[in-house]
Amino acid sequence: MEKFELHILGCGSALPTTRHFATSQVVNLREKLFMIDCGEGAQMQLRKSRLKFSRLNHVFISHLHGDHCFGLLGLISTLGLLGRTADLHIHSPHGLEELFGPMLAFFCKNLTYKVFFHEFDTKEPLLIYDDRSVSVTTIPLRHRVPCCGFLFEEKPRPNHIIREMIDFYQVPVYELNRIKNGADFVNPEGEVIPNERLTRPSEPVRKYAYCSDTSFYQKIVEQIKGVDLLFHEATFAQTEKARAKETYHSTAAQAGEIAKAAEVKQLVIGHFSARYENESVLLAETTAVFPNTILAKENLCINVGGEE
Amino acid sequence: MEKFELHILGCGSALPTTRHFATSQVVNLREKLFMIDCGEGAQMQLRKSRLKFSRLNHVFISHLHGDHCFGLLGLISTLGLLGRTADLHIHSPHGLEELFGPMLAFFCKNLTYKVFFHEFDTKEPLLIYDDRSVSVTTIPLRHRVPCCGFLFEEKPRPNHIIREMIDFYQVPVYELNRIKNGADFVNPEGEVIPNERLTRPSEPVRKYAYCSDTSFYQKIVEQIKGVDLLFHEATFAQTEKARAKETYHSTAAQAGEIAKAAEVKQLVIGHFSARYENESVLLAETTAVFPNTILAKENLCINVGGEE
Repeated sequence: MEKFELHILGCGSALPTTRHFATSQVVNLREKLFMIDCGEGAQMQLRKSRLKFSRLNHVFISHLHGDHCFGLLGLISTLGLLGRTADLHIHSPHGLEELFGPMLAFFCKNLTYKVFFHEFDTKEPLLIYDDRSVSVTTIPLRHRVPCCGFLFEEKPRPNHIIREMIDFYQVPVYELNRIKNGADFVNPEGEVIPNERLTRPSEPVRKYAYCSDTSFYQKIVEQIKGVDLLFHEATFAQTEKARAKETYHSTAAQAGEIAKAAEVKQLVIGHFSARYENESVLLAETTAVFPNTILAKENLCINVGGEE
Repeated sequence: MEKFELHILGCGSALPTTRHFATSQVVNLREKLFMIDCGEGAQMQLRKSRLKFSRLNHVFISHLHGDHCFGLLGLISTLGLLGRTADLHIHSPHGLEELFGPMLAFFCKNLTYKVFFHEFDTKEPLLIYDDRSVSVTTIPLRHRVPCCGFLFEEKPRPNHIIREMIDFYQVPVYELNRIKNGADFVNPEGEVIPNERLTRPSEPVRKYAYCSDTSFYQKIVEQIKGVDLLFHEATFAQTEKARAKETYHSTAAQAGEIAKAAEVKQLVIGHFSARYENESVLLAETTAVFPNTILAKENLCINVGGEE
């Protein structure tokens, strides 16, 4: 299987602790890196992860709260010091460029590369990134400010050819790409060999959904149905349910409810309030609803769609 | 002795590594905290130090490069989440408020306290802070942008009274404060008891000088003469002397030269370039010139004027 990993760089909430950095994570899809949110310290954590800075070309910001974007200045500045030449693309809800532009113009005057801001509306799901191997769509969330999650969907890969059958039917090499992509083979006698006799299907596509920050919001269930991995915020325990509602955050149990309703394969919870010395209480509340759940933690790497 | 400590929060240079955070340190003078520079991650390191956020009222920024001030947004935001009510004062060369003001207005809308910016010119030494126990004066440095260090000078403390002599001369209690501050005692018979018979002098005042970032700049020697502790940047080793000059930084040996010429009691070097896997080469080069030198490192606490 080709690589599809999620690296947690930080999974605390607004108040960093000695245990948790502010929110940031990196999706590694076939050695292309995509950063999701960039809280303070993201670049230090990225360095610790040993992922290659040069493989990062896209950063997705969920919303304009400091704990999800204050790390951008340091990251952009460091990429410059490393002599980067490739463009960097920053995707975010409206307003980020206006805020960060003057800071970048002053502090990162002589960047060796260009930074492009791509801003979007958070009301409806939007396809905001698309290449040969993956697409990224926004997931509208409900928070105190415009906010959305991100759905990473792997593109289907070509079928695997069955070498013995290719030899048996004497398929010429120049036909192989068409056949990998689903075409039947017509031999010189005009006989049609159906594709399913020549290939086996590639692995099913894998999906990762990131949902933070958000209050309990059932509308997202349809869009994240059946994903291999769901990151859902679980800022508070059940005892703080009122506070969760008031601040447009979720409880651990609510994260479990969403995972259960969406029939996801695995759930990872994060964005923990600083009040929890350890998150076992949160994990217990989530697993009571949705058993296949793990706690995010700094430097954790999860294989998306992998065996547990 | 009353407390006078220096806590190193970060001592790397522009490029953070897995070992070093960007520049930040805290002076703890009799439980009042003064932050010097505030690179990314300063608030996480401050939390790790177990120093009390509520004791911090003044932040001094040496110059407007990102690795010395990108941590301000997170720090200010966190102090708000902690419910702070006391004013926070940020002292810096001109331009900081104009840059950070719009970010604070957006990201820290509902702060429970006020942030005041105090901006100064870096050309001449200026007294920028003064209270009953300490004064802070700028030390003009030579860097690519306007930059200065900071000289922390403890105020003289009252003399210690000699209890036995006070009893012997039957000095009334209401005279004690005057006597601690140097007055002689005149007894009811009109006889003058000189102060030095009633008191012993308090401990000598202690001084800390912070000098970063700067090229080799002998003009500072006079101002930092005889300080108990000098922090001087030592970005590069001797092999990178040309690069140090070009980028307005110092070599380790140059830091030693300054310490030697200024006859300081102890030197701590920092602001290490990311190229050094460990800084023993830098330490060796400095101690060859000025033996009483230590390497800064994260979470190090130095007793200013203390025994080694």
